[in-house]
Amino acid sequence: MDLSITHPADFHVHLRQGALSELVTPHVRKGGFCTAYVMPNLKPPITTTDQALVYKATLEAIEPNVEFLMTLYLSPELTPDEIRKAKNAGIVGVKSYPRGVTTNSDGGIESYETYYPVFEVMQEVDLVLNLHGEIPSDSNIHILNAEPSFLPHLHKIHSTFPRLRIVLEHATTRAAIEAVKACGDTVACTITAHHLELTVDDWAGQSWNFCKPVAKYPDDRQALRDIVKEGHPRFFLGSDSAPHPPRNKSTSTPSCGCAAGIYTSPILLPLTAHILESFGALDRLEGFVSTFGRDFYKIPANASKVVLKRGVNGATFSIPEGGYTLKNESVVPFWAGKQINWTITK
Amino acid sequence: MDLSITHPADFHVHLRQGALSELVTPHVRKGGFCTAYVMPNLKPPITTTDQALVYKATLEAIEPNVEFLMTLYLSPELTPDEIRKAKNAGIVGVKSYPRGVTTNSDGGIESYETYYPVFEVMQEVDLVLNLHGEIPSDSNIHILNAEPSFLPHLHKIHSTFPRLRIVLEHATTRAAIEAVKACGDTVACTITAHHLELTVDDWAGQSWNFCKPVAKYPDDRQALRDIVKEGHPRFFLGSDSAPHPPRNKSTSTPSCGCAAGIYTSPILLPLTAHILESFGALDRLEGFVSTFGRDFYKIPANASKVVLKRGVNGATFSIPEGGYTLKNESVVPFWAGKQINWTITK
Repeated sequence: MDLSITHPADFHVHLRQGALSELVTPHVRKGGFCTAYVMPNLKPPITTTDQALVYKATLEAIEPNVEFLMTLYLSPELTPDEIRKAKNAGIVGVKSYPRGVTTNSDGGIESYETYYPVFEVMQEVDLVLNLHGEIPSDSNIHILNAEPSFLPHLHKIHSTFPRLRIVLEHATTRAAIEAVKACGDTVACTITAHHLELTVDDWAGQSWNFCKPVAKYPDDRQALRDIVKEGHPRFFLGSDSAPHPPRNKSTSTPSCGCAAGIYTSPILLPLTAHILESFGALDRLEGFVSTFGRDFYKIPANASKVVLKRGVNGATFSIPEGGYTLKNESVVPFWAGKQINWTITK
Repeated sequence: MDLSITHPADFHVHLRQGALSELVTPHVRKGGFCTAYVMPNLKPPITTTDQALVYKATLEAIEPNVEFLMTLYLSPELTPDEIRKAKNAGIVGVKSYPRGVTTNSDGGIESYETYYPVFEVMQEVDLVLNLHGEIPSDSNIHILNAEPSFLPHLHKIHSTFPRLRIVLEHATTRAAIEAVKACGDTVACTITAHHLELTVDDWAGQSWNFCKPVAKYPDDRQALRDIVKEGHPRFFLGSDSAPHPPRNKSTSTPSCGCAAGIYTSPILLPLTAHILESFGALDRLEGFVSTFGRDFYKIPANASKVVLKRGVNGATFSIPEGGYTLKNESVVPFWAGKQINWTITK
C-alpha cells in the first residue's frame, strides 16, 4: 500500500543562516514537505518585516520548490505599526521565546503584558501568535515542569484576546494537551515527530536526543499519541527540526554542554509515518502533517501530492548514519543508522 | 582555617578490575579517604567470599594504605551458609541491584522474597544489606520516579527484618530521605557529593553529569542538603564514584549511548568540603564523611587525620581538566577544569 499525502506542511522548522542554511533548507523538500513555517531565531533575530522578506528571498533562492511562511521574533522593537506592515507583506506569525530557554533566545520575553498593544493589533489583522511554552529554570522551575508552569500564561493571553489565533509550540505534556483542548477554536498546538517517540529515559546520557522542551514521562507521551490518534484538528505537526553542527551535539568532556535540538527535516515524512504507524495512528497521517495545520493557518493546499512507499516483505529503509554534508557544514539526523518502514517515491 | 578530619571513609565506591583498577584504586587515598566500602559489580560479579578475598588482596596490593571493606553481590548463588562464611571472613555487606538499572547489573534481583532466608541469616550474623533503590523502567516507571517507586520494598524488608542493618544507597529524592528518617535505627542512607550539587537541568544534554540514579528536582536536592545540614547521623557519604573510559562517557553520534556514572574519587574530600560549604554545612563535614558512617557500620576510626587547607585571598584549586591516565586507561573526574576552595595538605 502506498500513501499519497496532500501537500504536507511543517508548521515549525529552523532553517538557520549561511552555509548551514544552504545545507538544511533543501532538506524540507527531501523530507517530503512543500510548505515550511520558518522560525525567526537567527543571529540577529528577525524582528522586522524587511528582515523577514530578505530572509524569505534567501531561502527561496536556495530552494525554489518550497513555500516559506515567515514569522517575526516578539521583542520590544515590534510595534503595532510593524504588525500591520508585516500582515500586508504576507508575514504569517510572531514567535515568542521565554528568555534563555532555547537556541538564540537571549532576547526572549519576560512578561506578556508589555506586548498587549501588539497582541491587540495581531488579533485585529489576524496574525498568529506562536508560543514557546516554557518558563526559565529557577529555584522551583526545572526542565521537567517548565511547560506545565507556562500554561497559565497561555490561558491568560487566550482569555484576554479570544479572537487572537495562538499556537502552543511543540507540546510535550499531558497538561499542555489538556490546556489546548480546553481552549477555544483559536488555539492550536504543534507536536514534533520525536516527542511522539522519546521519553525522559531516552535523552538521559544521550545528548543527541536532547532538545527543549525535553521529552517527558511515558504518560505524557501517551497523551500526545492519544490526541494524534483521535485526529483532533487543532493538533498538528511542527517538527521543530533544529540542526546543530555535530561538535555541538556531542559531549567530549565534562565542560562542554550540548546544544538543544533534534534534526528531522530530511527524513520527516517517512519518520512521522513510521512513528504514527507504531501506535496505530497511520490513518491520521494526512490530517496531522497537512490538512489540520493548513486549516488552522488558512494556508490552502495545492494539488501537489507526496507518495510514501512501504518496504515489502519486511524491507526497511536506512536513515543515513553519517548524516549530510555541504561545504564545511554537516548535520546528523535523529535516528541516524536506524531502519524505518517508509520511504518517499516522489 | 585548616580542617582536620578524622579518618574519612567512603561508604560506596567502585574500584573496577585490571588496568582501570590500578589507575583508580590509589585515587581513594589521593581524594583524602582512608577507608573504602567496595562495590561487588565486577565482571563476573563478586558472589562468593573467596572471590571477595581475592579482590581485596588485589586492591591491597595496588594501594596498601587504604582499608577495603568488602561486599558480595546479592544473587541466587548466595546461600545462608555463604553468608556465615562471609561474616567470618570479615565481609561487611551484601549489595542488591535491581536488574538492568546500572553498570553490570544484568544479574540483579527482581523479587526480594526469594532472598528472605539469606536476609534472615544476615540479620542474625549482622551483615549489612546495601540497596540500590530503583525500579527498572517500564510503561509507568521512568528514571525520575524509579527511586520513590522502590521505597515500599525498603519498608517491607525493614519491617520483616527489623534488626537487619540496611543502607539505602545514593538517595536522590525527598521521598527517600523521608522514608529512611521514618525507619528505625537499623536503616541508614548514603548520599553522594554530586547529588548534593546537581539537578535534572545539569545532566540534560551533558552526559558527563549522567549517573544512576539521575539527579532529581531542585526540591529533592534541597531535601538532601537539609538532612546533611541537620547532621542526621544515619545519613553519610557514599560517593558512588564510578569511573568509565572517556569514550563511554562522550556521545559522538546518535547511536552511542553513554555509561551512567560520575567519577569523584581523586577529588572527593575537597569537593565534598566545597559543596557542603556552598550550602552552609561545612561544620557537618566530619560527621558526614567519617563518624556517622563509621558509627553505623561499626568500623572504628584510627588516629589518622586528613587536613584540608583553604585557598587564601580568594585562591582556588583546579580539578585537573585532562583527568588521569595509566597505561591505556584514563578517567576524567567530575567538575574537571573547575575551581574549588579546598585542597588536601596531608
